[in-house]
Amino acid sequence: LRNGVPEVIYCEGKSPEHIRGIVPRLAEHSANVLATRASEEVYQVIKEVYPACRYNKSARIVLVNPQPVVKKGSIVVAAAGTSDIPVAEEAAATAEVIGNNVKRIYDVGVAGIHRLLEYCEDLYTANVVVAVAGMEGALASVVGGLVSCPVIAVPTSIGYGTSFGGVAALLSMLNSCASGLSVVNIDNGFGAGYQASLINQLAVKEPKEEEQEREATEINWQ
Amino acid sequence: LRNGVPEVIYCEGKSPEHIRGIVPRLAEHSANVLATRASEEVYQVIKEVYPACRYNKSARIVLVNPQPVVKKGSIVVAAAGTSDIPVAEEAAATAEVIGNNVKRIYDVGVAGIHRLLEYCEDLYTANVVVAVAGMEGALASVVGGLVSCPVIAVPTSIGYGTSFGGVAALLSMLNSCASGLSVVNIDNGFGAGYQASLINQLAVKEPKEEEQEREATEINWQ
Amino acid sequence: LRNGVPEVIYCEGKSPEHIRGIVPRLAEHSANVLATRASEEVYQVIKEVYPACRYNKSARIVLVNPQPVVKKGSIVVAAAGTSDIPVAEEAAATAEVIGNNVKRIYDVGVAGIHRLLEYCEDLYTANVVVAVAGMEGALASVVGGLVSCPVIAVPTSIGYGTSFGGVAALLSMLNSCASGLSVVNIDNGFGAGYQASLINQLAVKEPKEEEQEREATEINWQ
Amino acid sequence: LRNGVPEVIYCEGKSPEHIRGIVPRLAEHSANVLATRASEEVYQVIKEVYPACRYNKSARIVLVNPQPVVKKGSIVVAAAGTSDIPVAEEAAATAEVIGNNVKRIYDVGVAGIHRLLEYCEDLYTANVVVAVAGMEGALASVVGGLVSCPVIAVPTSIGYGTSFGGVAALLSMLNSCASGLSVVNIDNGFGAGYQASLINQLAVKEPKEEEQEREATEINWQ
Amino acid sequence: LRNGVPEVIYCEGKSPEHIRGIVPRLAEHSANVLATRASEEVYQVIKEVYPACRYNKSARIVLVNPQPVVKKGSIVVAAAGTSDIPVAEEAAATAEVIGNNVKRIYDVGVAGIHRLLEYCEDLYTANVVVAVAGMEGALASVVGGLVSCPVIAVPTSIGYGTSFGGVAALLSMLNSCASGLSVVNIDNGFGAGYQASLINQLAVKEPKEEEQEREATEINWQ
Amino acid sequence: LRNGVPEVIYCEGKSPEHIRGIVPRLAEHSANVLATRASEEVYQVIKEVYPACRYNKSARIVLVNPQPVVKKGSIVVAAAGTSDIPVAEEAAATAEVIGNNVKRIYDVGVAGIHRLLEYCEDLYTANVVVAVAGMEGALASVVGGLVSCPVIAVPTSIGYGTSFGGVAALLSMLNSCASGLSVVNIDNGFGAGYQASLINQLAVKEPKEEEQEREATEINWQ
Amino acid sequence: LRNGVPEVIYCEGKSPEHIRGIVPRLAEHSANVLATRASEEVYQVIKEVYPACRYNKSARIVLVNPQPVVKKGSIVVAAAGTSDIPVAEEAAATAEVIGNNVKRIYDVGVAGIHRLLEYCEDLYTANVVVAVAGMEGALASVVGGLVSCPVIAVPTSIGYGTSFGGVAALLSMLNSCASGLSVVNIDNGFGAGYQASLINQLAVKEPKEEEQEREATEINWQ
Amino acid sequence: LRNGVPEVIYCEGKSPEHIRGIVPRLAEHSANVLATRASEEVYQVIKEVYPACRYNKSARIVLVNPQPVVKKGSIVVAAAGTSDIPVAEEAAATAEVIGNNVKRIYDVGVAGIHRLLEYCEDLYTANVVVAVAGMEGALASVVGGLVSCPVIAVPTSIGYGTSFGGVAALLSMLNSCASGLSVVNIDNGFGAGYQASLINQLAVKEPKEEEQEREATEINWQ
Ligand SMILES: Nc1ncnc2c1ncn2[C@@H]1O[C@H](COP(=O)(O)O)[C@@H](O)[C@H]1O
Ligand SMILES: Nc1ncnc2c1ncn2[C@@H]1O[C@H](COP(=O)(O)O)[C@@H](O)[C@H]1O
Ligand SMILES: Nc1ncnc2c1ncn2[C@@H]1O[C@H](COP(=O)(O)O)[C@@H](O)[C@H]1O
Ligand SMILES: Nc1ncnc2c1ncn2[C@@H]1O[C@H](COP(=O)(O)O)[C@@H](O)[C@H]1O
Ligand SMILES: [Mg+2]
Ligand SMILES: [Mg+2]
Ligand SMILES: [Mg+2]
Ligand SMILES: [Mg+2]
Ligand SMILES: [Mg+2]
Ligand SMILES: [Mg+2]
Ligand SMILES: [Mg+2]
Ligand SMILES: [Mg+2]
Repeated sequence: LRNGVPEVIYCEGKSPEHIRGIVPRLAEHSANVLATRASEEVYQVIKEVYPACRYNKSARIVLVNPQPVVKKGSIVVAAAGTSDIPVAEEAAATAEVIGNNVKRIYDVGVAGIHRLLEYCEDLYTANVVVAVAGMEGALASVVGGLVSCPVIAVPTSIGYGTSFGGVAALLSMLNSCASGLSVVNIDNGFGAGYQASLINQLAVKEPKEEEQEREATEINWQ
Repeated sequence: LRNGVPEVIYCEGKSPEHIRGIVPRLAEHSANVLATRASEEVYQVIKEVYPACRYNKSARIVLVNPQPVVKKGSIVVAAAGTSDIPVAEEAAATAEVIGNNVKRIYDVGVAGIHRLLEYCEDLYTANVVVAVAGMEGALASVVGGLVSCPVIAVPTSIGYGTSFGGVAALLSMLNSCASGLSVVNIDNGFGAGYQASLINQLAVKEPKEEEQEREATEINWQ
Repeated sequence: LRNGVPEVIYCEGKSPEHIRGIVPRLAEHSANVLATRASEEVYQVIKEVYPACRYNKSARIVLVNPQPVVKKGSIVVAAAGTSDIPVAEEAAATAEVIGNNVKRIYDVGVAGIHRLLEYCEDLYTANVVVAVAGMEGALASVVGGLVSCPVIAVPTSIGYGTSFGGVAALLSMLNSCASGLSVVNIDNGFGAGYQASLINQLAVKEPKEEEQEREATEINWQ
Repeated sequence: LRNGVPEVIYCEGKSPEHIRGIVPRLAEHSANVLATRASEEVYQVIKEVYPACRYNKSARIVLVNPQPVVKKGSIVVAAAGTSDIPVAEEAAATAEVIGNNVKRIYDVGVAGIHRLLEYCEDLYTANVVVAVAGMEGALASVVGGLVSCPVIAVPTSIGYGTSFGGVAALLSMLNSCASGLSVVNIDNGFGAGYQASLINQLAVKEPKEEEQEREATEINWQ
Repeated sequence: LRNGVPEVIYCEGKSPEHIRGIVPRLAEHSANVLATRASEEVYQVIKEVYPACRYNKSARIVLVNPQPVVKKGSIVVAAAGTSDIPVAEEAAATAEVIGNNVKRIYDVGVAGIHRLLEYCEDLYTANVVVAVAGMEGALASVVGGLVSCPVIAVPTSIGYGTSFGGVAALLSMLNSCASGLSVVNIDNGFGAGYQASLINQLAVKEPKEEEQEREATEINWQ
Repeated sequence: LRNGVPEVIYCEGKSPEHIRGIVPRLAEHSANVLATRASEEVYQVIKEVYPACRYNKSARIVLVNPQPVVKKGSIVVAAAGTSDIPVAEEAAATAEVIGNNVKRIYDVGVAGIHRLLEYCEDLYTANVVVAVAGMEGALASVVGGLVSCPVIAVPTSIGYGTSFGGVAALLSMLNSCASGLSVVNIDNGFGAGYQASLINQLAVKEPKEEEQEREATEINWQ
Repeated sequence: LRNGVPEVIYCEGKSPEHIRGIVPRLAEHSANVLATRASEEVYQVIKEVYPACRYNKSARIVLVNPQPVVKKGSIVVAAAGTSDIPVAEEAAATAEVIGNNVKRIYDVGVAGIHRLLEYCEDLYTANVVVAVAGMEGALASVVGGLVSCPVIAVPTSIGYGTSFGGVAALLSMLNSCASGLSVVNIDNGFGAGYQASLINQLAVKEPKEEEQEREATEINWQ
Repeated sequence: LRNGVPEVIYCEGKSPEHIRGIVPRLAEHSANVLATRASEEVYQVIKEVYPACRYNKSARIVLVNPQPVVKKGSIVVAAAGTSDIPVAEEAAATAEVIGNNVKRIYDVGVAGIHRLLEYCEDLYTANVVVAVAGMEGALASVVGGLVSCPVIAVPTSIGYGTSFGGVAALLSMLNSCASGLSVVNIDNGFGAGYQASLINQLAVKEPKEEEQEREATEINWQ
């Protein structure tokens, strides 16, 4: 099995008929097809045709044509509150299916900073960290300040009033004073898991030979 | 000298003539009049008439008719970045002048959380903390999670792009998952220092006698 | 019984199963656990397991393991319109449960300023005032101008059109020309009640001894 | 002299040459031509050609071809802060020039509600009130609650941070819980003065005869 | 019967029990009580107790204790599209009940300007015009340009996409290049009808005697 | 000379050196190169190298290597206020240079609808109309209702307060109830002139032969 | 049959009774009346009275009194994602019914640019292209860069989080660096199809005779 | 020399004195210290003390204590327009100084898609691509669709009107339909260069040994 780009179906807003039409087209030729944003109902629709499929209820993902995968490297997915878990699981499940070891660190919001600090070991050894948070989104900045690997920040729509459906968390993450942090769309767990996988796979691959023996050169400005 | 409500002149957008007209009216009857958002030019204008006045350049405050004050209790003013210092100083200077002990903890942004944690002692013994931050404003949440006293959060307009002149920090603070945190307007150091003083003064006053001997009563819902 | 930090469960968006799982974990070791944003349905779910629990329907709070509390000091909760009462009650009920005397002043919106002015006595003797208002949120400013204690302003999502779900009231409160006013998130009655309690408890505690005999010192600027 | 629609030139963003070209075209045939948003420089430009013109510096209005006017009825212009005075003066001066008695009530912001209440007499006898305020704009609601005549509310761009150049005040006014209140654009003193004049002139005119003797009729719904 | 301030109940978001509680309290002492934003269900609830009440279904207003009224003067209510009619009817019905002659001019949107121009006669003889429009809200500007009486503009939430629930129409009206135009909140038909009534009633009243014989005075600037 | 796509340089924010570098690169091979958003200073810089160039000061366009053009068809450019003329001129000048007859109709804002109606003849015979307006942008809707050819609407940044730099006019235009109207960016006179030219050139070209003799066919839905 | 302006009923938010009232009024005198935004239910309502009507389910349009039409010229409707098809179909179906040849190019989003490039032939020979896209809306810019005919861009409300119901796509289209592109409201397929038809019909019409023999004239600036 | 985290000074808004104070503190112990957002004036200030420093004028970066670096792997920095080059250069220069091979591909905006497609070779062999664009920001989506490595998207503040200082480009990038794309703050070239470096350095490092021989495991959902 190739650890590579997954086939994905975004199910939000698609009718059962629509789902029934699309899934077989993709699942005919591919293993580990992902149906994301899948409700229980969508799961039942798919299971009728693909009884072997599996449902990660929290992540809201159906895995069609499940096949074993080789998981490599290390991605940490950290989530601030329990309400952020569905988005975090979407990221984690996506990354696992496409061949990455994933360590989940949930309920580590910054209002109780000591819970996060207990996981320093995991954070320091990751190749990439996905930081998932709603409300004020401060987790991403604190994680970004702790680790020296790339951080992919995911704002969630959790909150009320001035959280504006995730905008407060998004702005917090885009304005982070920590370096090595980039951001995906609100609730885009899939996108974060996929980007983290691209980075982690670069880290576990042998470097191209020609990289091995470069010499120092001057910075030729002016 | 009464430790009480200060006379204040907000100088932003006021012409030298305007300043020359207002200051004497207030300073005639009061000591420790504050002229906030005062540029060097405003300071010079005031000094002509009140040579004894003092200028806190960083806070941009001129103190007219300076008189010694009794400083009580404990307010901590914490600031995330060096660019947030003017707003933090506005809060700190205001609080000092109206009779509060103020401890400054600057450059303790969450991208380097350990620097903040070194000041736990000060934070734990304060009656109230003022947390000043721009960019993603995460400092307020982290401080709010550490302390059990009230926190007054001040977003600053420091940042660029999606900081939107302090809106990102403001939203972060309003959506904080920490309890015991309330917020003032962007860059409103004066308002934060004044609110912190009201709280600290309550803490250092003797409670009214009748408070002493209450009995436990039932919560009478339904 | 300790008058202190309450255990709180935020029930909005949590399923009955979720609630059934969390409540016992917290209520096992604590009295006066608060379940906020609790619908009738949530109340019934909790009552099955904790028949002694009480429901403040207006505040939408369930009190699990209710125990008598010593109520101290004085918090005034003022609300502008009758539609703002649920948020005001969330603040008032929270504050009561954690040991504060609470005086409610409802339906005192500024379109009929005389009704508010009748309560001057209560307002003047409070240690802290919570001002709750939707629509244009002007109550907070008027209250802030009347009292010299700290005011915690709570914008509510009541209104239509350009109230933008509470944003109009929030902006009004953040831009108040009254001093001694800080703001919490839209509809955050719990947060306001908790912050008011922190302040009121400071006021009813004996000051630390070392505060007693300070001398006046000079303001050492420049 | 007819008390009627004034000729107006909006000078903001117009060059001296532009002004020199437009003014004579209007002033040739009309008395009491208004040049609004006129800087000192614009005034000098106009004075060269029309030495008899007058400049209301605070209102930033030049009156070209000044002629006596009959002032009728009663308009009250109330302003919250001293920084709001230029906009209030634009409204007041406009209304005066086109034939209205204008009573100014300045510096009556709601943070000191008692100052406003001292003017109840003037407010109660006005045909229309113009309420001018920046920051949180609460003055309009309080005035609207006191009087039973129409109120024209003018938000000003005075404020900082979340005042967003007058948007906070505007939203406050649009969401006022007082009835009989309508709103003009931010800083549009001219528009408010003009609308107030239209209303005041209706009040001082004899009603049309046919109005005199109507009978009560039923409300014919359904 | 006094033509005066009506008693009003805003029914949106109020439960049947709530309605049943409030209505009698107001209707006990007053005739022509208005229940606005009243659904069919609310109407049925009220009719049980007040069988004589009447329902204006389009305006969504229930009139409790209906009594004949003397209608005076002239208010024109103009609406752009058929979808704007409910808001226009709220304005028109409110104005009628409190004693004003109301002329409705509906479906006169500016995309077919000739339909509006056919009503010039009615527009020119009105004491005040209420202009109701959603989408781009241009009707208010065109009407404002045609008439010389005050115009009260009401943006409606009709539209989709960038109409942003009435914000597009609101901004259009606030920025109108026509003079003599002021604006109320989105969908606030009641507020517009009430403000129009205040103005129309000023027009049909005898002016106070002392207005009769003023002399022209100079504009005393500088 | 080919009437075709012009070479264009957008000069805003470019330094004189930058301009000096780019212009010759384009002007070497092309006639009628347009330098838009060109200040007097930019014009002088270009004139040094290309003394034959011409400057349309109002449109802020420099024409480099001017050559006669064949002007065809008919584009009307209508502008609401005199302050909108620079943007209208940018559209008109662009269209002329690339081979279109352009009729300008300026100062026809809807606050005086009769001025616009005087130009019905020109509007009815145009192949395409460009409607330029700031403030409330209502001109586009009114024009769109009058004509049956395509209208290209250009919002301008003219206005203050809630015009938000052209956003009010933009929203008005996007929400127009008139059909046959599409919109370009705020102040984008060039884009409007170019789009209008594309349309007008289609109108003046001979249709492709094969268009001549089609038969009616059924609409084959379902 | 005249290929001309269609009679259109916008059905969104209209009740069955409302529909039953309007349709006959328009369909009495006209063929090919369009009922847009029509649900299945609306279709059934119309079919009862007009059994010959046809329903384009994807476009959500009912065609009442269907008559054959002569289709001329060439409009390409390109859509980025499958979720954008309903809006694209609204544009395409509208254009067809009023007499235009329409070529659909769907599922050509820029994340797989090669699929779009396969249709270059169709794009190059069109008289006008309608580009329909949600999410980031980049299709419009890429198409605009490929073709030299006018492009009408339609943002759709497809997306989540920061797509803000189509605002992200709208801004992308308004800021396109491609020339010859104008934009309609979010989801306004009808408006785009209509505008495209106006343009295509200009292209297939014989030019007016007098256009034939113009001479080149100088650009007469300065 | 270690290829690692650089010492950085963000110079925007810092006074010459401030710069003079900070630079030596960092440059004392480190080579290749970066002073970003450095104006010519800042460069001169630094050069006085560190004559060996170098200035990348386009990137606005001063390199203090320049030392040769070993450049590894491959980062492509692509920029849409020439006005985006300063931000692209900030990213490119940052990445180079901290040890990465950087290939610049400028002026490849999507309005001329063929220019971008010429660089497919470079894009396909990069370990990470930085995509820099203002206005509609579509470059990021198109690049993201072409490559299978991670893309870091940087919106710039280039544009006018509805570009809203980079917000249009930011939203476009956050809503990209391409996978493997994450975003940094508007104009944050430094942040993008730094994040790209973190990723590229992971790619050129030897993987940790234990990664070498994993077996495929089942996805253990449910
Ligand atoms: N009504 C409320 N409004 C806002 N925040 C609340 C409310 N009730 C509880 N909280 C906060 O939510 C936290 C519990 O959230 P959770 O873990 O999701 O139950 C508490 O510690 C409080 O800080
Ligand atoms: N200060 C002002 N604020 C807002 N609108 C004004 C003001 N002064 C004049 N106007 C309006 O601007 C019009 C004149 O604009 P203009 O033709 O540009 O001089 C007048 O007819 C008024 O409607
Ligand atoms: N799908 C649509 N989207 C936008 N506007 C439409 C649509 N269908 C019809 N319209 C417009 O709505 C008008 C009819 O609206 P109405 O009178 O409410 O049925 C037509 O003249 C069109 O300009
Ligand atoms: N050009 C830049 N854009 C964004 N952030 C930067 C830039 N340059 C430096 N930084 C960040 O700003 C920090 C230094 O800020 P300061 O302490 O104010 O000099 C660095 O650690 C970086 O994280
Ligand atoms: Mg880091
Ligand atoms: Mg705390
Ligand atoms: Mg106070
Ligand atoms: Mg009133
Ligand atoms: Mg008028
Ligand atoms: Mg038309
Ligand atoms: Mg093109
Ligand atoms: Mg990719």
